[in-house]
Amino acid sequence: MRVFGIDCGTEITGFGVVESQDTGRERRLVMKAMGAIRLKKAHSTAERLEQVFRELSRELEQWTPDTVAIEEVFYSVNPKSALKLGQVRGVALLAAATHKLPVAEYAPLKIKSSVVGYGLAKKEQVQFMVARLLELSEVPEPPDAADALAIAICHIHTAQTLAAQAVGR
Amino acid sequence: MRVFGIDCGTEITGFGVVESQDTGRERRLVMKAMGAIRLKKAHSTAERLEQVFRELSRELEQWTPDTVAIEEVFYSVNPKSALKLGQVRGVALLAAATHKLPVAEYAPLKIKSSVVGYGLAKKEQVQFMVARLLELSEVPEPPDAADALAIAICHIHTAQTLAAQAVGR
Repeated sequence: MRVFGIDCGTEITGFGVVESQDTGRERRLVMKAMGAIRLKKAHSTAERLEQVFRELSRELEQWTPDTVAIEEVFYSVNPKSALKLGQVRGVALLAAATHKLPVAEYAPLKIKSSVVGYGLAKKEQVQFMVARLLELSEVPEPPDAADALAIAICHIHTAQTLAAQAVGR
Repeated sequence: MRVFGIDCGTEITGFGVVESQDTGRERRLVMKAMGAIRLKKAHSTAERLEQVFRELSRELEQWTPDTVAIEEVFYSVNPKSALKLGQVRGVALLAAATHKLPVAEYAPLKIKSSVVGYGLAKKEQVQFMVARLLELSEVPEPPDAADALAIAICHIHTAQTLAAQAVGR
């Protein structure tokens, strides 16, 4: 299973590709790619959204994931920020839809507890655990890319738990 | 000048194409097209956004406007609604950007005062004045399409005022 995680942001949108490999003896999580789309302040909103769509589309074509995983939204932000974030999120969801990929959404608490084991974990803890789970020699930077990897890991953990429960029935 | 107005909504997104024709003797506003994209409740968010993008792209290709005009956002809504509206708006802005069209944004007050002469006009007054300015035999329906036409008219009025001021200098 290969999952493409997206961490939407109005300035930086992180992405990360995680593959779950099952050798029969062991199950590993492998980081295939990660990165961040940094938007230029000088660009118009429409140009920025076009950049996000173009770069995400390129990555989706290159990595051909089975699923796109994205954070459910944080409603505690103010309406102005929510609208701006929504614009980026809309374009990310569109990129998934135009590539006929299913989208899974996870709440921030769920993502953190899936990766760190604790829903209120700090950003540094998430980065540290993502590096550990993916056997990376350094913590993933920027944090937006680490968050995107965390979202992808959360989807894999959730899918594996559901599959194990189905077998147990 | 041909302007494509878009009125974004989470359930219905209206659009309208208005052309300003200058015969030398008189200046007319002509409605070339109008319509509404109705989103199915049964569809996922990504599918809905894909529908908005696909239908807006098709209309932009058919009508080849010079400019896309869109409403600036209303920050009085709550963060949850703002996020959902933002997702649709992001996809609409992306449709403009992928067709290399400039985007003009107008505040609701500016649109209403440009069409009705009064910033706090009611929806029915906007529909009535849009019908009158475009010499339509009936008020445009649904109101979302009328709003999209109003946004397009607002852009034409604004551009003509700026051009007149430039001549007057």
